Amino acid sequence: MFVYEKRLEYPIKIKNTNPKLASLIISQFGGPDGELNASMRYLSQRFSMPNAQAKGLLTDIGTEELNHLEMVGTIIYQLTRNLSESEIKTAGFDAYFVDHGTGVYPQAAGGFPQSSTAIAVKGDPITDLHEDMAAEQKARTTYDNILRLCDDPDVIDPIKFLRAREIVHYQRFGEPKRSTWNDCD
Amino acid sequence: MFVYEKRLEYPIKIKNTNPKLASLIISQFGGPDGELNASMRYLSQRFSMPNAQAKGLLTDIGTEELNHLEMVGTIIYQLTRNLSESEIKTAGFDAYFVDHGTGVYPQAAGGFPQSSTAIAVKGDPITDLHEDMAAEQKARTTYDNILRLCDDPDVIDPIKFLRAREIVHYQRFGEPKRSTWNDCD
Amino acid sequence: MFVYEKRLEYPIKIKNTNPKLASLIISQFGGPDGELNASMRYLSQRFSMPNAQAKGLLTDIGTEELNHLEMVGTIIYQLTRNLSESEIKTAGFDAYFVDHGTGVYPQAAGGFPQSSTAIAVKGDPITDLHEDMAAEQKARTTYDNILRLCDDPDVIDPIKFLRAREIVHYQRFGEPKRSTWNDCD
Amino acid sequence: MFVYEKRLEYPIKIKNTNPKLASLIISQFGGPDGELNASMRYLSQRFSMPNAQAKGLLTDIGTEELNHLEMVGTIIYQLTRNLSESEIKTAGFDAYFVDHGTGVYPQAAGGFPQSSTAIAVKGDPITDLHEDMAAEQKARTTYDNILRLCDDPDVIDPIKFLRAREIVHYQRFGEPKRSTWNDCD
Amino acid sequence: MFVYEKRLEYPIKIKNTNPKLASLIISQFGGPDGELNASMRYLSQRFSMPNAQAKGLLTDIGTEELNHLEMVGTIIYQLTRNLSESEIKTAGFDAYFVDHGTGVYPQAAGGFPQSSTAIAVKGDPITDLHEDMAAEQKARTTYDNILRLCDDPDVIDPIKFLRAREIVHYQRFGEPKRSTWNDCD
Amino acid sequence: MFVYEKRLEYPIKIKNTNPKLASLIISQFGGPDGELNASMRYLSQRFSMPNAQAKGLLTDIGTEELNHLEMVGTIIYQLTRNLSESEIKTAGFDAYFVDHGTGVYPQAAGGFPQSSTAIAVKGDPITDLHEDMAAEQKARTTYDNILRLCDDPDVIDPIKFLRAREIVHYQRFGEPKRSTWNDCD
Repeated sequence: MFVYEKRLEYPIKIKNTNPKLASLIISQFGGPDGELNASMRYLSQRFSMPNAQAKGLLTDIGTEELNHLEMVGTIIYQLTRNLSESEIKTAGFDAYFVDHGTGVYPQAAGGFPQSSTAIAVKGDPITDLHEDMAAEQKARTTYDNILRLCDDPDVIDPIKFLRAREIVHYQRFGEPKRSTWNDCD
Repeated sequence: MFVYEKRLEYPIKIKNTNPKLASLIISQFGGPDGELNASMRYLSQRFSMPNAQAKGLLTDIGTEELNHLEMVGTIIYQLTRNLSESEIKTAGFDAYFVDHGTGVYPQAAGGFPQSSTAIAVKGDPITDLHEDMAAEQKARTTYDNILRLCDDPDVIDPIKFLRAREIVHYQRFGEPKRSTWNDCD
Repeated sequence: MFVYEKRLEYPIKIKNTNPKLASLIISQFGGPDGELNASMRYLSQRFSMPNAQAKGLLTDIGTEELNHLEMVGTIIYQLTRNLSESEIKTAGFDAYFVDHGTGVYPQAAGGFPQSSTAIAVKGDPITDLHEDMAAEQKARTTYDNILRLCDDPDVIDPIKFLRAREIVHYQRFGEPKRSTWNDCD
Repeated sequence: MFVYEKRLEYPIKIKNTNPKLASLIISQFGGPDGELNASMRYLSQRFSMPNAQAKGLLTDIGTEELNHLEMVGTIIYQLTRNLSESEIKTAGFDAYFVDHGTGVYPQAAGGFPQSSTAIAVKGDPITDLHEDMAAEQKARTTYDNILRLCDDPDVIDPIKFLRAREIVHYQRFGEPKRSTWNDCD
Repeated sequence: MFVYEKRLEYPIKIKNTNPKLASLIISQFGGPDGELNASMRYLSQRFSMPNAQAKGLLTDIGTEELNHLEMVGTIIYQLTRNLSESEIKTAGFDAYFVDHGTGVYPQAAGGFPQSSTAIAVKGDPITDLHEDMAAEQKARTTYDNILRLCDDPDVIDPIKFLRAREIVHYQRFGEPKRSTWNDCD
Repeated sequence: MFVYEKRLEYPIKIKNTNPKLASLIISQFGGPDGELNASMRYLSQRFSMPNAQAKGLLTDIGTEELNHLEMVGTIIYQLTRNLSESEIKTAGFDAYFVDHGTGVYPQAAGGFPQSSTAIAVKGDPITDLHEDMAAEQKARTTYDNILRLCDDPDVIDPIKFLRAREIVHYQRFGEPKRSTWNDCD
C-alpha cells in the first residue's frame, strides 16, 4: 500500500478485480460531474468570493474533493489490478485499455476526456453558489446510479461514504448563499 | 422585416451597427450559458420529469428560450449589417468574420463553438431542477455583464427584457422543485 | 401521454423497452448529424439569407426539425421506460446510465456530447445551402444505418417517416440554391 | 529556403511580416473548413468509395490539399518571422504567442484547436460526396473573407490560387457524384 | 486492390473480418496518439525549427506517418468488409456503424473525434522535440496494447511493423534534440 | 489577504491591475500546458507507477503544481481587481468578462476551456515519464513567452520562480525514468 492510500479519508481495500465496474466509476474521476471537476470548480471560484467565510468554505470543500478524487482513483486502480487479456476483452474494458492500459485517466463513463466546459465560474457569488449546489446534486445522482449497478461491498462502502459527503457539501453551500444573498442583493 | 422578426416577444430595431458588441452578445446565442443551451437543457430534461406539471413547465420555458434565441440572433444580425471592411478590421470582428462572415453562428464570446458539454440531464428531477435554477442565474449574470459593456439603448432595452425573464424562470423552477421534493424524497 | 406527445407529427407508441436501441438512436437526438444540429444549423443560417424565400424555407425546415427532435426524444424515452438493473447491465446501457440515468441527453451514439463544431454558418447563401443539402444526406444515411439494426415495427415506422422527411428537405434546399445562385453569381 | 518550400505548387515569398493577418489565415491551416480538415476528410472517405474512379479522385484531391496545407503554413510562417515584442503586443498576436510562440499550430482564427468533429465520413458515397462539395464551398468562402481583409499582394496571389483550386475541386466532386448516383440509387 | 494499397510501405491482406478489432485499432487512425496526430504534429512543427537538419527530419517522419495512417486505415477497412447486420450487432460495432457505416473516421477507440488539442506546437525546438519523443512512446504503447488484444497474424504483422517504426522515430528525434540543444542553450 | 494566499510558496503582491496580462497568464491556469493539467497529469499517472519512488515523485510534484495553480490564480485575481468598465473595454478583456466577470476560469489564452484531451495517461511508466518531461518543457516555454510580454516586476518575479520550478521538475522526472527503464526493459 502506497503513501497516498494511507492519507485517504476512508480506507479502500477491494479484493476482486472488476474492470467493467471501473469503467463506470471513472465518471466520478473525470466525468462532467466527477470529483476533479468539483474540486476545480470550487478552487477556481473562491478567488472572487466576497468574504472570508465563502472563500474558506470553497477552499475547504475543494480540497476535500481532491481527497475524494484520490479515493475514486484508488478504487479504479484496485478494480483493474492483475487483469488477464481475456478479462480485458470480455469485460468491455478493451477500448479503454487500448488508450490507457490500466492507467487512471480523467474521462467520463461515456469515454470522452474531462473538460472544464462542464464547470462555470461566473464571478458572481450568488450564481457560483447555485452552480455549486447543482454540482453536488449531480454528483450525488451519479453515485446513486453507480450504487444501482454495483454489488461488491468493498466498493459499495466507500461509494456510500462519498455520496454522503456530497449531501453535506450541498447543505454547507446553502449557508454562504443565504448570508451572501443578504450582503449582495 | 422578416417573418421571424414579427413573431418576437420583444421588438428589436437597432439603428447603429456595432460588430464588437455583437461579438460579445453572441455568448447568449451559443455560449455555455446562452439561450440555445438553456432551451435544449429544458426540452431534453422534460422527458424524464415525474409529473405533468414539471413536464409542462420545462416545455413552456424551453420553448420561450427558443424565442429568446431568435431575439439574440436578431440583435447580432442587426448589429453587423452593412459592415465595411475597415469596420470589420478595427472592431476586433475580423477573426469571427473569417469563419462566418456576418452569419450568426452558435459560439461563446471566447470564440469556441456551442456544446452540450455545458448542460446536464441526469434523469433525477430534483437534480435537474437544481441545474435549471443555476442555469438561470448564470444567464442572468451574463446579461448583467453585457449591460455593463453596452451603451446603445436600442440594445439595452431587449437585453433588460431578456434578463428579467431569466429571473422569472428562476422563480418558476423553484415551484416544481418544492412539490417534486415532497413526492420524491 | 403528455402534452408534447400530442403535438408530434407522427404518433409514437413503443410497447417493448430496448435500451441498446435507444443508445444507438440517440445519435439522431444529439449526434453530429442529428435533429438538434439540423434545427440549429437552419435556424442560425436564416438570418443572413438574402431573400424572404430562403429565410422562410430555413425557418420552416428548422422548426420542423425541432418537432423531429421531440419525436426522437420520445422514442428514446419510451425505449428506456421501467428498466430493471439487470436490463441496464446486460444491454450495454450502463455507461450512459451512470451519467444520465434514463434522462434524454444530447449526445452521439459514440458517447460524446452534441456540439456546434459539426455545423457551419458561413454567411454565404450558396455555401450554407450546400451545407444544408449535405446535412440532409448525412441524416438520411444515419436513419438508413439505424433501420439496418432495428427490428421493432413500433420504432421502424416513425424512423421511416423521419428518413422520408430528410429526402423532402434535401429536395427543397435545392430550390433556393438554384434561384439564389442566379442572384449571386 | 527549405526543402518543403521548393515543393510547393505555388511560390510564396512574403516580404513584410503581419502577425494579425497570420492569425486570420490560420483558419485555413487548422480551422473547421481549413486544408487539414479538407485533406483528412477525403483521405479518410476514400476507403469506402465503391469504385476506383471515386477512390482515385479522393486520393488525388486529398493529397493536393496536403500541399495546400503546406502553402498555408508557409504563409503563416513568413508573416510571423522576426517579430519584435512590441509587434506581438500591438498586433493582437499575444494570446497566440503565449501558447505557440511563432510556431504554426492547427487552430481556427477563433482560437480553438482543429478537430475532426467538423468532418463527416458516413460510409455512403453519395452522402460523402455531398459533404465534399459543401466542404469546398466552405473553404472557398473562407478564402473570400480573407481576401476582403488582406491588402498585401505577396499574400493575395497565393490565396487567390488556393481559392481557385477549391472551385476546381468542387466541380470535380460533381463528376463521381453523378456517376455514383447512377450506380447506387 | 486500389492504388493507395499498392503504395503502402508494408503489404496488408486480412482474410477474416473482425469489426471489434477494427474499433480498437482505430485509435491509431484518429486517437490522441494515432498516426494522424503524429503526422500533423511533425508537419506543423517543422516550420519553426532552427536548421535544415531538424526541418528535414520532421518533414521525413511526418510524411512517413501519413503512409502509416494509410496502412492503419487499410487495416480497418479490410477488417470491416462485407459485414452482416448480425455481426455488426454482436461485435460491439453498432454505435460506430450508426454514425459512420463502414467508413473510416478519425476517432479514438473511446469514440470521440480526433483533435489537435492532443498535440503541441510551442515554437521552441527543444520543447517540440521532447513532445515528439513522448509522442513516439505513446504511439508505441498503444501498439503494445493492441498487440495484447489481437490474435490474427494478418493484423499482428503490420502492427508489429508500425510499432517498430515508432521506436526508430523515437531514436531519430533524439539526434536533433542533442545537436539543437548545443545550438540553443 | 486570505488564507490561501498565506500558504503560497512565493508571495504575490501586485500593485497595478492589468487585465490584458491576466488574459495571457491564464494559459498557465487552464491552458493545455498549464498548472491544472500538469497537476492532474501527475496525480493521475501515479496510480500505475511500478514502484514507490516513482509514485512518490509524481505525488510530490503533482501536489506542488496545485500550489502553483493557486499562485497563478492569485496573480490573475490581483491583476483584475477593481476594474472599471472602460478598462475592461479597452484592454481586450471584454470577451472574457462577458462569460466570467472577474472570476478565475480554467481556460487557455486562446479562449477555450481546459481539457484533459491535452494530457496522457498511458499506464506505461516509461511513456508516462516521457510525457511528463515534455510537459515540463511545454510549461517552461509558456512562461518564457509570458516573460517576453510582461514588464511589471510584481508579476515577473513569481513567474520567474514558477519557470525555475518547471526546470527542477524536468530534471527530477529524469531520475525515475532512468531507474524505471532499468527495471522495465
